[in-house]
Amino acid sequence: MTAALGRVAVLGGGLIGGSIAAAARAAGGVHVVLTDRDGTARRVAAERGLADEVVDRVEDAARDADLVVVAVPPEAVPEVVVDASSVAPDRAILTDVGSVKSNLTLDVESRLRAIGGDPGRFVGGHPMAGSERHGPGAATGTLFQGATWILTPTEATRSDALTVVSRFVGRLGANVLVLRPDEHDRLVAVASHLPHAVASTLAQVAADTVERTGDAVLAVAAGGFRDTTRIAAADPDLWVGILRGNRDAVLTALRAYGDRLEGLTSAIAEDRWDDVAAGLERAAVARRRLAPKERVTRWVDLVIALDDEPGALALAATALGTAGVNVEDLAMRHATARRGGALVVRIAADAIDAANTALAQAGLAARVEVTEDVAGDRPSS
Amino acid sequence: MTAALGRVAVLGGGLIGGSIAAAARAAGGVHVVLTDRDGTARRVAAERGLADEVVDRVEDAARDADLVVVAVPPEAVPEVVVDASSVAPDRAILTDVGSVKSNLTLDVESRLRAIGGDPGRFVGGHPMAGSERHGPGAATGTLFQGATWILTPTEATRSDALTVVSRFVGRLGANVLVLRPDEHDRLVAVASHLPHAVASTLAQVAADTVERTGDAVLAVAAGGFRDTTRIAAADPDLWVGILRGNRDAVLTALRAYGDRLEGLTSAIAEDRWDDVAAGLERAAVARRRLAPKERVTRWVDLVIALDDEPGALALAATALGTAGVNVEDLAMRHATARRGGALVVRIAADAIDAANTALAQAGLAARVEVTEDVAGDRPSS
Repeated sequence: MTAALGRVAVLGGGLIGGSIAAAARAAGGVHVVLTDRDGTARRVAAERGLADEVVDRVEDAARDADLVVVAVPPEAVPEVVVDASSVAPDRAILTDVGSVKSNLTLDVESRLRAIGGDPGRFVGGHPMAGSERHGPGAATGTLFQGATWILTPTEATRSDALTVVSRFVGRLGANVLVLRPDEHDRLVAVASHLPHAVASTLAQVAADTVERTGDAVLAVAAGGFRDTTRIAAADPDLWVGILRGNRDAVLTALRAYGDRLEGLTSAIAEDRWDDVAAGLERAAVARRRLAPKERVTRWVDLVIALDDEPGALALAATALGTAGVNVEDLAMRHATARRGGALVVRIAADAIDAANTALAQAGLAARVEVTEDVAGDRPSS
Repeated sequence: MTAALGRVAVLGGGLIGGSIAAAARAAGGVHVVLTDRDGTARRVAAERGLADEVVDRVEDAARDADLVVVAVPPEAVPEVVVDASSVAPDRAILTDVGSVKSNLTLDVESRLRAIGGDPGRFVGGHPMAGSERHGPGAATGTLFQGATWILTPTEATRSDALTVVSRFVGRLGANVLVLRPDEHDRLVAVASHLPHAVASTLAQVAADTVERTGDAVLAVAAGGFRDTTRIAAADPDLWVGILRGNRDAVLTALRAYGDRLEGLTSAIAEDRWDDVAAGLERAAVARRRLAPKERVTRWVDLVIALDDEPGALALAATALGTAGVNVEDLAMRHATARRGGALVVRIAADAIDAANTALAQAGLAARVEVTEDVAGDRPSS
């Protein structure tokens, strides 16, 4: 639905950047240029053929790019985006992969405005994929297959920028979910940062028990303990940085968790076993909803009428994201005779009710345009 | 080191009982008789060949047994043990597989005394193995390979009873860990029941988030969330029973966890990031100690001098268990010319320091008798 990309610049050749380059190269149709400030990382990336071209400097990578992917740690993102935007062509769209989005996006947009640039060309992103391993040696072109990749447009984001990044991410094999930056931060606090805090605390209680009564508790630990504490073994320094970067949302999630835990403790202490059972039942139902989904075989194109205002696209896309509806493809269709335009989104047919409800709540009208039967994979588009 | 068992009666043909029968049959050298009060369970067990013989009644199973394994739910254990003890020969040893041990063991011993029986012939047990599946259809002879099987003798337990059960369990492929009943309950509260409560609470917070803001949090949930909440999908009714059966120890564990969580929350709220890092580091170290152990290749027989008093064996064995030292084999050696006897335990050579320290703290002296080089599996004994 959109013109093909020519050149993609990936700035940062770690696990995520290297994997993006490799996946884009495998998907074909683009020329992928990778750089990293570390010479060893560049050499490994070149040896492993992660990109069509590995260059020494950001300027060399970004100069002719249609899309610039900034894959550096969150704290370095704003500066690298600004540097890249000043050497990239005006047509270039920029995105990042930082794990925290609110403050980062505000910072990027205000810095772009400060140098007279266009904040609308930047789309915040966060692929929900990773590995225990690091660096270009661990990069793989399949890292994002079936993963959720969150995009966080703001009112300033241009619709063509969101479309370009969304389609690029879809080509890497990921499912796009569009959320507001603050909503992203709240949700990853619950779904990613809180689990880490919970697992780490459990491992600490086990350590307390070892100190008090010896190693037997480790010998007694069976599968449930192992699963529940697995992520607690991850790099502490990395996780301090993550918790710190999303401090406020993490605190909110921790307090909500603490309240629920206190509720369970009280129910047990007061022998309210029906309440205990109701809580466990609710948790079991919620957890079972995470079971791998059936393979989607039918797709629907939904046409959503939009006012031609900044923010209308983000409003529509985030309404779908909040309802948990993945976007398989996304394009703007501009009306010719009047100001209004339309957003065309391709979603799974079984998500149509959830999508219509979410859009109606956001005050948007949608109609189904095309129904395709696709016997398996995402539509060729 | 002890006379071979002739007949083993397994009372209860569910996942655990059926697997015990199948594992004992596979190990050979015994005649395994299984029963279950449910006719369908008996039929499935017979069809699958889990035992040498499947009979209709407890009396028929226990009548000539040398060892009776009671594999029924914890609340039914005392009655079934007493029933079996009254039909089994005097030589028969009895054990169970209940997941909670303090109250259960007291109850069994007092009921045995009440009918003029010998409480010393009963050894409480708890195999730390299971599956999401239930019933004899899910039973497998390999369920206990490498699993920890806790035995909980009391001062009343006879040393030959502990020896018989310990060696039987070892023949099923499990590693024996001997703990006091109350210690068992405290440790499984931390290592098994607390993780369930923690995972369930996390899944509930996710459910709260879905109710408040939609399904997006489920789409955002990556591997960490999935691991940490996996056990929350298990049968709520089963888990209410487990938490209820170990109520006091579970409450103690939940409160210790709540205190640690509050400590982490405060550290984040007060920006004490060094404290956050220290906690995550301590948790990571504790969790990494759970990594699969190196294959043990050397065994040591440790001879521990004991006073010939009731409780001396339990004292020695629980001292090792508390230190996390698995017992590979265990036998009593009675002195002839004097009252004193000795306990011979076979342990991994790399556990010798931990064992000596634990025994010394318990006021016991030990010496290494035999060192064997075994290139792989547990010693043939």
